[in-house]
Amino acid sequence: MRAQHIHIDYKKELETASKGMILIHEPKTLIRLIVRMIVRKVKIKHAGMIIYDAAKDTYVLVISRGEKGLKIPAGFARFDKNNSLIRILTKGKYHALYLRKHVLVLEDVNKMIWQESVLSAKRPQSGPDSPTAYKEKEELLHFFHQISEQMQMFNTVACVPAYHHDMLLAILLLGAKENDERFDQEELDFFSALASDVAMAIKNAQLFLDLRKELDRNRDLFFRTTLVLASTIEAKDPYTRGHTERVTNYAVAIAQQMTDNGSIVLPARFMDDLKIAGLLHDIGKIAVPEAILGKTDKLDDEEFRIMKDHTLRGVHILKPLAEFEESIKGVKYHHERYDGKGYPDGLKGEEIPMIAAVLAVADTYDAMTSDRPYRKGLPREVAINEIKKNAGIQFNPIPVRAMVELFEKGKV
Amino acid sequence: MRAQHIHIDYKKELETASKGMILIHEPKTLIRLIVRMIVRKVKIKHAGMIIYDAAKDTYVLVISRGEKGLKIPAGFARFDKNNSLIRILTKGKYHALYLRKHVLVLEDVNKMIWQESVLSAKRPQSGPDSPTAYKEKEELLHFFHQISEQMQMFNTVACVPAYHHDMLLAILLLGAKENDERFDQEELDFFSALASDVAMAIKNAQLFLDLRKELDRNRDLFFRTTLVLASTIEAKDPYTRGHTERVTNYAVAIAQQMTDNGSIVLPARFMDDLKIAGLLHDIGKIAVPEAILGKTDKLDDEEFRIMKDHTLRGVHILKPLAEFEESIKGVKYHHERYDGKGYPDGLKGEEIPMIAAVLAVADTYDAMTSDRPYRKGLPREVAINEIKKNAGIQFNPIPVRAMVELFEKGKV
Repeated sequence: MRAQHIHIDYKKELETASKGMILIHEPKTLIRLIVRMIVRKVKIKHAGMIIYDAAKDTYVLVISRGEKGLKIPAGFARFDKNNSLIRILTKGKYHALYLRKHVLVLEDVNKMIWQESVLSAKRPQSGPDSPTAYKEKEELLHFFHQISEQMQMFNTVACVPAYHHDMLLAILLLGAKENDERFDQEELDFFSALASDVAMAIKNAQLFLDLRKELDRNRDLFFRTTLVLASTIEAKDPYTRGHTERVTNYAVAIAQQMTDNGSIVLPARFMDDLKIAGLLHDIGKIAVPEAILGKTDKLDDEEFRIMKDHTLRGVHILKPLAEFEESIKGVKYHHERYDGKGYPDGLKGEEIPMIAAVLAVADTYDAMTSDRPYRKGLPREVAINEIKKNAGIQFNPIPVRAMVELFEKGKV
Repeated sequence: MRAQHIHIDYKKELETASKGMILIHEPKTLIRLIVRMIVRKVKIKHAGMIIYDAAKDTYVLVISRGEKGLKIPAGFARFDKNNSLIRILTKGKYHALYLRKHVLVLEDVNKMIWQESVLSAKRPQSGPDSPTAYKEKEELLHFFHQISEQMQMFNTVACVPAYHHDMLLAILLLGAKENDERFDQEELDFFSALASDVAMAIKNAQLFLDLRKELDRNRDLFFRTTLVLASTIEAKDPYTRGHTERVTNYAVAIAQQMTDNGSIVLPARFMDDLKIAGLLHDIGKIAVPEAILGKTDKLDDEEFRIMKDHTLRGVHILKPLAEFEESIKGVKYHHERYDGKGYPDGLKGEEIPMIAAVLAVADTYDAMTSDRPYRKGLPREVAINEIKKNAGIQFNPIPVRAMVELFEKGKV
């Protein structure tokens, strides 16, 4: 009795640690942690984990760790459902017949092979053991051989299956103990119980990951859809093909550079708001007649008034989307000037929201460097110098500094 | 020793049950389950749970259950952070001084009140017990009185705090045992350990709920943004104000009715795909010159060819969005006819994807019933009869049947 309690003195520690696992929502981190924990606490030479990959309906070796680690790189070994090791651990016929202890022990497998071999050899080739029965037994022997070979290949002395709702979700591979003692039944029972916690934690983490991936996919689709629709609207203005996307990319790069060079600390939402503002900054142009948009000569006062109105038209269009409150500031004020001579409100200096100040630089840079049917775009260097000269006059100096740095790095 | 083990024979069951909790990702269901489990297994008269509401930075009584339940309706009782019961259970000064057993027991609180009262009465009003010290002691007495009163109001003999990273996340309220025995220290220790599992499960469920809410918000914003942008494009066509939104609503109602009346089993994604298709079905009209869109006379052949081209223009615009594959079928084929006389491909009968067949009915119904500057819309009944007559000719009979049923129910 005493000896057993010494064997299993890692129990409490592993139980406590396994409870905390539930809040680790990154499956890979979780699995790495579990395996490392087991190697250290149980003092075994190595351990590994095979996980069910629902997307591909196969099992995959995710990690192996320990001094005598597997030769096979993690993620490389895949097993389909007909693999012998998977089959014996999957709940069903083989599982019920040969997995009475809930854990698959290499010693037991080898014992069964030995018994079957001895019995087969002794068995007469006629009588009650017909050729069919013989064939079945041969197959069974082959099955156990395969299992034994695989376990030896993975340097595993015991495989602990983890189930969720009777579905085989993971297999914990235990290497030999450092002191080369055998695992006793109490230990195997403990690992079996631990495996069900591990299965639940992994399932939980996978569900989290699925939700996060869906969230990322939706976010991405949202931005791409907005880009497609904004570009469709932009297509009405013959001189601005690709302007929307380029301005958005410049603006995001400027804001990132402003953060990186330590000029400013921006709120967490700023980048998303800026992206939306970039994509939609000229949406109000849909209300400007094609004749004015397409004019290459100087606009007269009335035409210029209508053109300038695109900022407020944009605000009007986007007003139903309350979530765009910050982005709308970018749409509204991207033609304001730092010296107060811009439109629509003649805001001055710091009165102009930063989102609009960033857009103003991005918008002007793209307008200067893009080709138009009636003129070629300016060289980048000339455009950058023009913007630099206008820091504190037309533009907020913070985004100008960032834009100049991006140019110097060859990023714009 | 024997008696203690009888007391705590629910331990194993509660531990096992608490493990399964981790995969319940609906916080309310989870909390209801935990409380019900405790009432049954521990055989207490009732139990309740107070949970931290991060959004409002208060604590709220979420559930109470048992034969002698609380009089206060769940969700009604809210406690701010200065509430005495919350203060003594929050990790900090009071917690360290008075919560040595990790669980707040009513009997102990009352004992402290008695001791303080007796000491105060005996204490002289001058000397080392200055007025300031006296005032502090009065306040402490008041503090304990409030705790005692609240626990009695909630019919609770023990409050078990649940922490996550030292933050008080929940309080389990335990009523008296059915046999009116006291909770012994072993039991209180067990509940304290259980509470930390419960806190983790609740935290996990709340994180899930947060993610799901974010997903819902994003989905909703996605559809609303698409509607706003599609409507902006639609605004170029002077005769179709609100057409996009109405067609989408009709189409979704038709598809729902087709499912409800058992005509068809639609794939899970169908509704979302249809919604997108409805919002974008006429997006290709952006490429049709305003002169043709605005014409009230009959279009000549060339004009009609350009007009018909809006289906393929729509496909072209949306092609970069691979996720819209099914929706694009709706955009492309919503002018096909069941008899094969439609455009662009002259598809016939079941060759026309169902998403387009549904849109065709919705689109035609809205076109017939809407007012145009040069004519008033048809009465609904006339339009429905027209659509009914064209079942199997212009339209797939399945969406026609659904549309007629919706009309008969007064839903369109």
